[in-house]
Amino acid sequence: MKLTVLIHCPDQTGIIHAVTHFLLQKGGNVIYLDQHVDKEAVVFFMRLEVEFPTDFSKPDFELEFTHKLAKPYAMQWSAHFEEVRPRMAIFVSKYHHCLYDLLSRYRSQELQVEIPFIISNHADLQYVAQKFEIPFHHIPVSKDTRDIAEEKQLKLLTDHQIDFIVLARYMQIVSDKLITHYPNKIINIHHSFLPAFAGAKPYHAAFERGVKIIGATSHYVTEELDAGPIIEQDVSPVSHVHSIKDFIAKGRDLEKIVLSRAVQLHVARKTMVYNNKTVIFT
Amino acid sequence: MKLTVLIHCPDQTGIIHAVTHFLLQKGGNVIYLDQHVDKEAVVFFMRLEVEFPTDFSKPDFELEFTHKLAKPYAMQWSAHFEEVRPRMAIFVSKYHHCLYDLLSRYRSQELQVEIPFIISNHADLQYVAQKFEIPFHHIPVSKDTRDIAEEKQLKLLTDHQIDFIVLARYMQIVSDKLITHYPNKIINIHHSFLPAFAGAKPYHAAFERGVKIIGATSHYVTEELDAGPIIEQDVSPVSHVHSIKDFIAKGRDLEKIVLSRAVQLHVARKTMVYNNKTVIFT
Amino acid sequence: MKLTVLIHCPDQTGIIHAVTHFLLQKGGNVIYLDQHVDKEAVVFFMRLEVEFPTDFSKPDFELEFTHKLAKPYAMQWSAHFEEVRPRMAIFVSKYHHCLYDLLSRYRSQELQVEIPFIISNHADLQYVAQKFEIPFHHIPVSKDTRDIAEEKQLKLLTDHQIDFIVLARYMQIVSDKLITHYPNKIINIHHSFLPAFAGAKPYHAAFERGVKIIGATSHYVTEELDAGPIIEQDVSPVSHVHSIKDFIAKGRDLEKIVLSRAVQLHVARKTMVYNNKTVIFT
Amino acid sequence: MKLTVLIHCPDQTGIIHAVTHFLLQKGGNVIYLDQHVDKEAVVFFMRLEVEFPTDFSKPDFELEFTHKLAKPYAMQWSAHFEEVRPRMAIFVSKYHHCLYDLLSRYRSQELQVEIPFIISNHADLQYVAQKFEIPFHHIPVSKDTRDIAEEKQLKLLTDHQIDFIVLARYMQIVSDKLITHYPNKIINIHHSFLPAFAGAKPYHAAFERGVKIIGATSHYVTEELDAGPIIEQDVSPVSHVHSIKDFIAKGRDLEKIVLSRAVQLHVARKTMVYNNKTVIFT
Repeated sequence: MKLTVLIHCPDQTGIIHAVTHFLLQKGGNVIYLDQHVDKEAVVFFMRLEVEFPTDFSKPDFELEFTHKLAKPYAMQWSAHFEEVRPRMAIFVSKYHHCLYDLLSRYRSQELQVEIPFIISNHADLQYVAQKFEIPFHHIPVSKDTRDIAEEKQLKLLTDHQIDFIVLARYMQIVSDKLITHYPNKIINIHHSFLPAFAGAKPYHAAFERGVKIIGATSHYVTEELDAGPIIEQDVSPVSHVHSIKDFIAKGRDLEKIVLSRAVQLHVARKTMVYNNKTVIFT
Repeated sequence: MKLTVLIHCPDQTGIIHAVTHFLLQKGGNVIYLDQHVDKEAVVFFMRLEVEFPTDFSKPDFELEFTHKLAKPYAMQWSAHFEEVRPRMAIFVSKYHHCLYDLLSRYRSQELQVEIPFIISNHADLQYVAQKFEIPFHHIPVSKDTRDIAEEKQLKLLTDHQIDFIVLARYMQIVSDKLITHYPNKIINIHHSFLPAFAGAKPYHAAFERGVKIIGATSHYVTEELDAGPIIEQDVSPVSHVHSIKDFIAKGRDLEKIVLSRAVQLHVARKTMVYNNKTVIFT
Repeated sequence: MKLTVLIHCPDQTGIIHAVTHFLLQKGGNVIYLDQHVDKEAVVFFMRLEVEFPTDFSKPDFELEFTHKLAKPYAMQWSAHFEEVRPRMAIFVSKYHHCLYDLLSRYRSQELQVEIPFIISNHADLQYVAQKFEIPFHHIPVSKDTRDIAEEKQLKLLTDHQIDFIVLARYMQIVSDKLITHYPNKIINIHHSFLPAFAGAKPYHAAFERGVKIIGATSHYVTEELDAGPIIEQDVSPVSHVHSIKDFIAKGRDLEKIVLSRAVQLHVARKTMVYNNKTVIFT
Repeated sequence: MKLTVLIHCPDQTGIIHAVTHFLLQKGGNVIYLDQHVDKEAVVFFMRLEVEFPTDFSKPDFELEFTHKLAKPYAMQWSAHFEEVRPRMAIFVSKYHHCLYDLLSRYRSQELQVEIPFIISNHADLQYVAQKFEIPFHHIPVSKDTRDIAEEKQLKLLTDHQIDFIVLARYMQIVSDKLITHYPNKIINIHHSFLPAFAGAKPYHAAFERGVKIIGATSHYVTEELDAGPIIEQDVSPVSHVHSIKDFIAKGRDLEKIVLSRAVQLHVARKTMVYNNKTVIFT
């Protein structure tokens, strides 16, 4: 069986040795180890993939790890078995490109998750959900219904034991309550090269400013709009010949690729968050 | 002889025909024509390279062009003979990389300009100027001496008939007076992907924000800091493994290449400015 | 009504003037003009978009254009009305990513074509065609059935008046006969940065060579394998941490984006072919 | 004091633990560890940076490391003290751009090496060497004098205890003898995206083929021309508007940046070679 372990803790001498020693004694073979030290914050990060020749009890392993390593080194850590597919909910509004891209990857096994449902504040994309045979919940959001809508969303998420949420161009601000339930587990795609052009209509702002490169940014959602930890960014050249319509068309390709990369990194448990920044292991 | 003509005017039917008709009658062969219409501003832009079999009087040509084309079509235009090398002044402070790069290109004939002198508010880079045998004027700038320094700069620029100025990481704000003398003729390199991280210490701000891509932007200087028309931008990927020092080192390579491209575009008269944006012909 | 005109002919003085003069007399307003001169081959290329205030007879226009311009200037040319959607056939084998991407763009109106059918030598992707409600023809190809298969393909293409063909990772070599029927009208995506790694298994070859960047190339199909005129290329960085499987996964994203861009350029009639190279207008 | 350790050996369980255990016992603090397993070749690679609170004898350390680790695990390894600057020789011919770039970085302390001399088969760039006050040895190479020239080169390299050689657009094939003396220690820059366009005149070949992207490749020199382990590659977009002259001009910027990055990686001891491929640590 194969285990992925993520650790962060105050930086101190001997951590790598202590962890590899523990895993060796449990019979594990470290097939991947990547570590990083944030020298300013004096924090140590590590990601390991470990193969064990035989199955074992995860609770026992966790108990022993906590006792021998996590407590002495003040670690925050998590361990994940490869076989378990994370459960992902998609939120959309009216734009189709990210949704089509995610569902195509899902159906063709590029994306190794379960997608129990799609939520949208509009009915426009129901036909796409139907094509891919995913349950679609139309939950309209207005000033007056915001609280009710949110309760419906949370109930669906809880009932289906959702692990993380992907906002695939969901054009609503997500509530603090939802963010608190899913800390660093809501992935958004913003259609600009953040921190440039945060907020609404970034392509229009980029066109107005006369930039020569446009971008897209995928980040974890935090309470401050478009200011969460960045997972992935990419850019595309533009010039004076391109209209706003061209920016939007080029942007669609950027958005869907950048969002998909961020989702894949999250699913592979290659992301760690600290001080509103990410460590992205390769 | 070869002439480059730049034109912009209100968009209207028949301009290309009128201009090519005029040039044909003068015996010219259009070897390059690129045009652009800004549909929002309803402005037409055109750049032509024209070869004439025989020499002719530039003033006569200009008079006729003005009478037959510029007036009827309300054109702003300019014509440039290829043989004339523009005269370029360099302003620097303490960073060497852009200066070295520009001077290397100059000495090896990559950059077809005259560089009568370098101005700096510090003496640090005098040794580089000496290596390349360019006069170096150390004009310190402080709150009290700002006006005097500026007078000295302007006198040098005027005495040497400077056509345009390159701020090769000049760490002072250029005065409005200088900008008025050289409208869209002062090229700056800013060490960020504008409009993100305008102002001081952009690499520190980028590091703090946790971006995954850093950039550099070359633009014409206007009165508003770091807000002038963008000529050229480029980017470089970064990750959590990179320190601020790494950002700065990677940035140096970006800065010198982006600045050099902008300077080359300006020298080749491939840039036009309108509404604080550039049209960059290929 | 709006017309796009593509022209190439021996380079000579006065062509732009002659063409714009003709169009002006017909009441047309040139809203876009891009031209290029291949100085080695001494060939002139031009693309114009022209708006006419009233409708007119295309045959009459073509007759007059031929008489007044095409013959005197020895032009090869074509004119296209914007309203007519080109008819595109897709050939696939077993890989889903390019097919999903093209069909998503088609269904969401990003891609303004008609897709009367999909042909495949395998039945694997029939379910994708069904999702998107496109007729799917399974035409197996083996040594013995190659000729019969080809006849079936040609009949379908002819019956449905197909304008151009997209090989969306079709794993068969297309016959000379088909190429002759569709000269510079069959668009292929090759999963390498051509001319590196032409032929089979390019990702394996790239991995073996230890390259630091992989690529994808979309080109028109000619009789020589992977040697036709290149329309579009793009690349993605890789490193020693990436396995062949990673190369293939990264490559999928490259392939679908590069193929889609090439198809869009073809549909917008922004491609011209000469001497086994392309002129790609912006 | 700070030590960088590079190791590769057959992959086996417990290596990381064994090495970190050894270093911990010696009082070292691992401040950086990166490892890689080539699963096909079953080889383990590791790079560590270790800080020790006190100085110690390097020979003693090496003896103990060899006895306790290198022998039992069949390691090939090396250890480097940070203070020692590697000694680098530059070979050039007639192109100035890479030479200017390397020397600018050297003089401004971007590049932390010693450059005892420059060798060239032409006298053209002597003036650049003089600007930067580096000894310049003009050693002409012809069919008849090849052996003598090589002896002169080797004597200079040996006399000055050169650690590695940079071919900064040196237009001669380096002899097997030199390669044997400097295995994986001669860095070349080739002006194409290898393996495309190996050999002479790659920009002409790229232009002829009509590629949409050009590249540059830095690699260690091996006996087979342009086929050594690739250290670094980068690319730049081109189009039909660019002439061969434009390709060459754009290429100059690519070449100097790619070569400089490769040299910096080598100097930082972040490169390891195995099976004609490189592991490049970040």
